[in-house]
Amino acid sequence: MFTLLKTEGRARRGQLTCAHGTAQTPVFMNVGTQGAIKGAVSAQDLREIGCQIELSNTYHLHLRPGDELVKEMGGLHRFMRWDGPILTDSGGFQVFSLSGRRKIQEEGVTFASHIDGRRIFMGPEESIQIQWNLGSDIAMAFDECVENPAPYAYVKQSCERTFRWLERCKTEHARLKQLADGVNPQQMLFGINQGGILPDLRVWHMQQIASLDCDGYAIGGLAVGEPAETMYEIIEAVEPYMPAEKPRYLMGVGTPVNILEGVARGVDMFDCVLPARNARHGKLYTWNGAMNIKNEKYKRDEQPIDPACRCPVCRSFSRAYLRHLFAAGEMLAMRLAVLHNLYFYNALMDRIRLALEEGTFEAFYREYREKLGARM
Amino acid sequence: MFTLLKTEGRARRGQLTCAHGTAQTPVFMNVGTQGAIKGAVSAQDLREIGCQIELSNTYHLHLRPGDELVKEMGGLHRFMRWDGPILTDSGGFQVFSLSGRRKIQEEGVTFASHIDGRRIFMGPEESIQIQWNLGSDIAMAFDECVENPAPYAYVKQSCERTFRWLERCKTEHARLKQLADGVNPQQMLFGINQGGILPDLRVWHMQQIASLDCDGYAIGGLAVGEPAETMYEIIEAVEPYMPAEKPRYLMGVGTPVNILEGVARGVDMFDCVLPARNARHGKLYTWNGAMNIKNEKYKRDEQPIDPACRCPVCRSFSRAYLRHLFAAGEMLAMRLAVLHNLYFYNALMDRIRLALEEGTFEAFYREYREKLGARM
Ligand SMILES: [Zn+2]
Ligand SMILES: [Zn+2]
Repeated sequence: MFTLLKTEGRARRGQLTCAHGTAQTPVFMNVGTQGAIKGAVSAQDLREIGCQIELSNTYHLHLRPGDELVKEMGGLHRFMRWDGPILTDSGGFQVFSLSGRRKIQEEGVTFASHIDGRRIFMGPEESIQIQWNLGSDIAMAFDECVENPAPYAYVKQSCERTFRWLERCKTEHARLKQLADGVNPQQMLFGINQGGILPDLRVWHMQQIASLDCDGYAIGGLAVGEPAETMYEIIEAVEPYMPAEKPRYLMGVGTPVNILEGVARGVDMFDCVLPARNARHGKLYTWNGAMNIKNEKYKRDEQPIDPACRCPVCRSFSRAYLRHLFAAGEMLAMRLAVLHNLYFYNALMDRIRLALEEGTFEAFYREYREKLGARM
Repeated sequence: MFTLLKTEGRARRGQLTCAHGTAQTPVFMNVGTQGAIKGAVSAQDLREIGCQIELSNTYHLHLRPGDELVKEMGGLHRFMRWDGPILTDSGGFQVFSLSGRRKIQEEGVTFASHIDGRRIFMGPEESIQIQWNLGSDIAMAFDECVENPAPYAYVKQSCERTFRWLERCKTEHARLKQLADGVNPQQMLFGINQGGILPDLRVWHMQQIASLDCDGYAIGGLAVGEPAETMYEIIEAVEPYMPAEKPRYLMGVGTPVNILEGVARGVDMFDCVLPARNARHGKLYTWNGAMNIKNEKYKRDEQPIDPACRCPVCRSFSRAYLRHLFAAGEMLAMRLAVLHNLYFYNALMDRIRLALEEGTFEAFYREYREKLGARM
């Protein structure tokens, strides 16, 4: 259940209650693709760095270890030892981006596993069944994520089909909820808006899916290569048609500045692999912009990554030590960098929420839109 | 300062007081080669898994980030944020095993860095200076570790030279202690016994170095390919000539059974990369022997690695989850496996010490010599 607590402009302060706890929004969800967070970070570490919602990938877990096995082990919460909210994506994005030789039909998609090439079929029903087995708190509808740009006719046909797939997802989800054996019977289902970078299709599609009364709505198919300005325009076009009383999730976004811009345009939920991926390459976020810790100038720098950061890494280790770990190829470099970056993202959301509570979001937005985009 | 608290047969229960705290012996030292522990384990994690002494490698830290830089950063304790005892090896072992095109002379060794091929000279004085800069609690004398087997004449000539190198190490260490700028002015110096697998040379060399009144004595050059029985015979031959009031360190040993056999033969200190290296390949230690967590039979196993283990991994995660992490190639697999194995080694030493205190070591030895050597 979502409760809207306060607004400032289009920005929203709310809370989302799931079977495994309540998340304060706006929220950044921390990505644990295969039931583990990249960089040797465990579910226990997530608690320490302020994570509210963990996100796992249906496609990956279906292939390995298999959602049936996860169900036997008591569901994903129990399997990975995370007792907070979990969102699972639908698998659609990975089917279209990772797998080989895919074939899309009305029924669903046949594709080749990126692990062993095995042919697999996934349609709306299969995606929902897998997520049901995983027992996440929030399941996502199965959708097609089209490339940007794509021909108008193709995008139109695709998002009409994605709408029909959502209807089938809803039906399958309702059927499963009737059965007695669910790992997480209170699982919610979010619909996903598509339509490429074509505002009229986006709006049409949003109006269609809003009529189906999902538990929340996501904007998918953005941040896949189009300019940031285009992304912001699409959000602005679609947002007025998103039900105000439901949570809004911008999928796969983004940089700290992207998130700030998203919040300013009425988005409540975000997720992105960027902070972890950048961390693994030594790109670290601070309140004064991004830095590359591998830089020679940090060789003798005894300061923490960010003196203003209260994360477990900044409370203990110096830039000089972290730089050494990267130079020496130590796995510990990855772990410390990922912990800092994820903490930073979670702390950014804390400050955004605080600004919204205090009615100072506009000022926060103006100040940090510049600072967070800087390079140190 | 070493205090011998109790003995049972040749086995000894003691304590070793260093500038950074007192270690209870017999002790296993946890290896952090480059100022970090393999498997994304930090100095803070070492505390949690019961580590008493951390061991770092002089050769690696000299090459990267450089001992001068570590000294500028306040020494190795401050650099890696470990405030307990640190032992540094002399660099000798790596010079002989890792570096290329080495040339041994009376003065020292010229070798090529394994990182960039740069020619470097290291003799007794250089090794001691580097360890002085690192500021470890225990420095090791520079020695030559000969291959087993090697011609008698070569081993004799080598261990005579290693004795002369120890005299030079002592002189240099005394000179540095006179200077006012030491990172760790109370640093101790241990001598290293060599002599290959030739008992008479081992005994002669041990008698020689015992005359120099070092702070402790190590047996080096074992566990480099010879049968375990040969290693035990050499320890038995040398041990009666090791000063009873000084700590005794068996370098680079070994399996849990090797350690048990070493303690039974009067050894106080051990170190080995084996528990961390095996962990990274899924080989985990339990009180009932070793297991390979990648094995298919653990796919649906909800038990912890070892139900008798109280480590942070066994208190939370299942074999099924750990097996999944290995199959999925998640870095978290390495971290959890290393944490468990190091905890297990530290816990093994706990139980050995307890048995010695209670006068039941003989019974413990008989029971666990079998169990620890088993395969699950
Ligand atoms: Zn930090
Ligand atoms: Zn354990």
